[in-house]
Amino acid sequence: MKYKNINKINIYPLNLTIDNIQGESLMDILLHNNIQLPNNCGSRGSCRKCTVKLINGELSSKAKYKEYYLACKAQVLSDVDIELVKYKLIHKNNNIISKNIPFKLDKEGFELKPIVEKKDLVLSPPSEDDKISDQERVASTLDVEYCLSLNLLRKLPEKLRGNNWHVKAIIDHNNNELLNITGNNTNKVYGLAVDIGTTTINTLLVDMQSSEVIDSASCYNSQIACGTDVISRIVYSKKNNGLEKLNSLLLDDLNNLINSVLKNKNIDKKQIYAVSIAANTTMMHLLAKINPESIRFAPYVPVFSEFRTKASELKLNVNKHTNLISFPCVGSYVGGDIVSDILACGMCKDEEIKLLIDLGTNGEIVLGNSDWLMACACSAGPAFEGAGIKCGTRAIDGAIEGFSIKDGFKTVNNSKPVGICGSGMIEIISELFDAGVLDRQGKFKVTNDKNIIEKKNKKAYLLCNKDDSGCGESIFINEQDIENIIRTKGAIFSGVQSLIDYAGIGFDDIDEVIIAGGLGESINFEKAVKLGLFPDISGNKFKYLGNLALKGAYLRLINKDLQEDIEHIKKIINYFDISEDTEYMNRFISSLFIPHTDLNLFSI
Amino acid sequence: MKYKNINKINIYPLNLTIDNIQGESLMDILLHNNIQLPNNCGSRGSCRKCTVKLINGELSSKAKYKEYYLACKAQVLSDVDIELVKYKLIHKNNNIISKNIPFKLDKEGFELKPIVEKKDLVLSPPSEDDKISDQERVASTLDVEYCLSLNLLRKLPEKLRGNNWHVKAIIDHNNNELLNITGNNTNKVYGLAVDIGTTTINTLLVDMQSSEVIDSASCYNSQIACGTDVISRIVYSKKNNGLEKLNSLLLDDLNNLINSVLKNKNIDKKQIYAVSIAANTTMMHLLAKINPESIRFAPYVPVFSEFRTKASELKLNVNKHTNLISFPCVGSYVGGDIVSDILACGMCKDEEIKLLIDLGTNGEIVLGNSDWLMACACSAGPAFEGAGIKCGTRAIDGAIEGFSIKDGFKTVNNSKPVGICGSGMIEIISELFDAGVLDRQGKFKVTNDKNIIEKKNKKAYLLCNKDDSGCGESIFINEQDIENIIRTKGAIFSGVQSLIDYAGIGFDDIDEVIIAGGLGESINFEKAVKLGLFPDISGNKFKYLGNLALKGAYLRLINKDLQEDIEHIKKIINYFDISEDTEYMNRFISSLFIPHTDLNLFSI
Repeated sequence: MKYKNINKINIYPLNLTIDNIQGESLMDILLHNNIQLPNNCGSRGSCRKCTVKLINGELSSKAKYKEYYLACKAQVLSDVDIELVKYKLIHKNNNIISKNIPFKLDKEGFELKPIVEKKDLVLSPPSEDDKISDQERVASTLDVEYCLSLNLLRKLPEKLRGNNWHVKAIIDHNNNELLNITGNNTNKVYGLAVDIGTTTINTLLVDMQSSEVIDSASCYNSQIACGTDVISRIVYSKKNNGLEKLNSLLLDDLNNLINSVLKNKNIDKKQIYAVSIAANTTMMHLLAKINPESIRFAPYVPVFSEFRTKASELKLNVNKHTNLISFPCVGSYVGGDIVSDILACGMCKDEEIKLLIDLGTNGEIVLGNSDWLMACACSAGPAFEGAGIKCGTRAIDGAIEGFSIKDGFKTVNNSKPVGICGSGMIEIISELFDAGVLDRQGKFKVTNDKNIIEKKNKKAYLLCNKDDSGCGESIFINEQDIENIIRTKGAIFSGVQSLIDYAGIGFDDIDEVIIAGGLGESINFEKAVKLGLFPDISGNKFKYLGNLALKGAYLRLINKDLQEDIEHIKKIINYFDISEDTEYMNRFISSLFIPHTDLNLFSI
Repeated sequence: MKYKNINKINIYPLNLTIDNIQGESLMDILLHNNIQLPNNCGSRGSCRKCTVKLINGELSSKAKYKEYYLACKAQVLSDVDIELVKYKLIHKNNNIISKNIPFKLDKEGFELKPIVEKKDLVLSPPSEDDKISDQERVASTLDVEYCLSLNLLRKLPEKLRGNNWHVKAIIDHNNNELLNITGNNTNKVYGLAVDIGTTTINTLLVDMQSSEVIDSASCYNSQIACGTDVISRIVYSKKNNGLEKLNSLLLDDLNNLINSVLKNKNIDKKQIYAVSIAANTTMMHLLAKINPESIRFAPYVPVFSEFRTKASELKLNVNKHTNLISFPCVGSYVGGDIVSDILACGMCKDEEIKLLIDLGTNGEIVLGNSDWLMACACSAGPAFEGAGIKCGTRAIDGAIEGFSIKDGFKTVNNSKPVGICGSGMIEIISELFDAGVLDRQGKFKVTNDKNIIEKKNKKAYLLCNKDDSGCGESIFINEQDIENIIRTKGAIFSGVQSLIDYAGIGFDDIDEVIIAGGLGESINFEKAVKLGLFPDISGNKFKYLGNLALKGAYLRLINKDLQEDIEHIKKIINYFDISEDTEYMNRFISSLFIPHTDLNLFSI
């Protein structure tokens, strides 16, 4: 879209004038100028969060909504003055990188067989009796038939002779590929484990020799600016340059995280020889810059289940020889992240029937054991990751992770409170309901509690004053937040109901319930059941394992044999499409109460 | 090398002034300005062919040679005026491309199983009951597990849906790779067979469906400007940017040939899905831009025997998905061209003992059968390809290919004579010796023949007057040419002797002698034996099969199963290093007579 006669846009209350007028809609133009409006629906015009007021000039009339205009639909037709309602100023690289991500490093039962290895290579020099080529000499010493890349061949003769035939070989066991030949004084070799969520991105830096995690970093997925859920992102990808934009936002996030851990540990990108990525199907398509549209429409098929490429071909800032290790996508809505979950919790190797619930933006649920697995996904929303909740946050330092009316709140690492993470939200609502502060619909039914306040016309429960908080703002939860959380817990619970029903078993047949996701270590299962998030199963059957997708990505790095387990998972897993379950919508609507419409489902 | 205060070089007798002063030596500067001096030794200063006269200014004194300077060693120290002695003006793309190359298309005994195939692909669209990904859908229909490249995946969804799930798949059976998915109205698929010789480059354009050769082109290898034999080229590669220069000269030649056949047949480069290249070890290194130095020094090992790459990665002007198909190099001096020879003549599949002589610049000799093969190489020089011979030419239209004193000369296709090709040289010298015009050392011993003339102080035999020739010049052979040819035939004959001796057999044990190379169809074996080029074996055991390396490259394209034969050849072949044979040099010196010092070797 070209703007010939439009020179500037004045923006209030920012008192900014912009003249860099690029993009199809007013929203795009603003985003280009680092002003981000809320956009939950992927610019479809349905969430109506991106309203602006027109003070002067002309916007396309079709974008008019009440006394506002929807910026995602508004074309700029002249120089305009506009007033923003809700916005965020973003700066390149400003996506806060958190260094302390919730990750339980539990290598129990997993042998250490790193996928990438640095091997000492002492070659006998060629002689009259031994005239094989340099390449064959290297391959025969390694006792495997490696075919070297052209790049590597070009530097091979100098590397071998310049180091007196004593070099290091970097081997990728997963791809059976010799990645590099380096001099004898080669630095350490590292790997990256990455979990790309719809809302959150997590990265671990791993020493490939010791298999220790030596650094970590996480951030929100900047694609949030283009829609909060995968469907909105797919819608956005159809816009002009939408796919390129989504891809570059994701790549910027990933490379920022990578650069952050590299800088922190003083490591060169050339030392990263393995990248293992767990992500849902849509994220994998956007990472690969592949049109994800077929995921959105029946019969919901992805373009690929797996693909092979160099990480550098995707523009990841690592050694150019490094291969991408990814997890196969089982279906359009059960992606590699779920396969990674299954791998990491080991449910595919056990006779016991386990139920796995991954509380991501896309809530993923898996049921089964070593003989059979059934998976489904439901649109849970990003509430438990802190997004879409006024004072929500990830489970970072200072996040409110627990709460009781008697003792007040508890924060991660007992730091000053900065917001509420998933486990905190569960406890707060559960407690307030138990205490009769909230009714079954999640509305405040008492008004004489000093903590019940009014914030911008919405009733809210105050947890912490501005003065006592660690973020310079008061921390509270309002009725809209509670509604969001109830929708999230309802989606999850109904999904579990549908899957168990489809499998033809009862809640009692489940031997273990594994909870995954970044919602916080200190999750109180009893309170979560009381909220109606999880089925009413004996509390000691619950187990919180944190970010399993990230753990699976990590385990891939340190055990090359896991490829076999993945093949096994691919063979026995079945995808159950919840949208095909006529009961699901009824169940969902019935679940929008605390704990549920049908109180028989809950004994407590 | 930077020339700060040097502004121009005046060149006589060209009356040219050049101001583009780039390069290390005067020779390099001239080459940059499209003026090529003879350079047989790879700028070592040993052939002394690149002499120039200094008229004004200063050249480095170390380059002084008698009253001349050697341009390959001369640094330009001021503005200079120089006079060239011998030079050639070259223009980019001026390397004459000959369209009629000697190639016997004999597919007898070879099944047609093209290495690249265009397959019709009718897919069932995804449905509720069939939700596999696009990639898996394609792969399962082809009944092979193909992993698509990122590039291909990116366009896959549009290709499939845009063509209603009815597309064409281009499959590379050699690499088991799906090269492309294209629309239904796809054009034909072609392949290129290429023989890169030290002196000559030949190309065939092949219709991959019918396996017919539909066009061909050949030219001299422009690297000749950097040395006539492989050793000189390797020496040149050590100069500053020498490797890059050699690589780009070769690539320019190859792409000129490719563009020539494409243009001639109105084909797009995207239609070329297979490139099969037979070349000696040094040429393969230079093509891949890999330092060939280790080939030159004991123990003479190459950097690789085989490598895999996309042809486009080498910068060949074909479809970017196309894989390079190459032949393994058995040793530093027995390259993929010889493996291609063996494959093409079928000696590796026969019980009879055969002797194969490939009369290239590097003369390659193979002895053996289906159980054992022995190969050696000798530096024959480019005489039989027309290079280094005053009126020499390849076996193109009008090349003098036969001669008798009684009937005069015979040319290829009876066209007006343009020069003398290999088979012509053999007959001329053999006839002149038989008739007593030449003595055993190849010097003219009679002077009263009207055809014996003096040309630039050298005695010569005139074959055709300027007025009767097709090239505007008289055609003759002089004593220096004859000396070159005797050295060439001596190198070949001594190589054959050494190899047969090493194998422990006699000439009588040989069932068939196969002659290969571009020296011309009409080779007269009896006269070649009389010259002392070939051993004195019954004439009916000889067989001329033309450019076998090119034929092997062609056969690779049309029969995917030949890879097995190549593996067999690799297993049974042994390389015999002639430089290790203490007898070889004595044999070579004894062979520098017509037919030989030891007349007992020849009954005729």
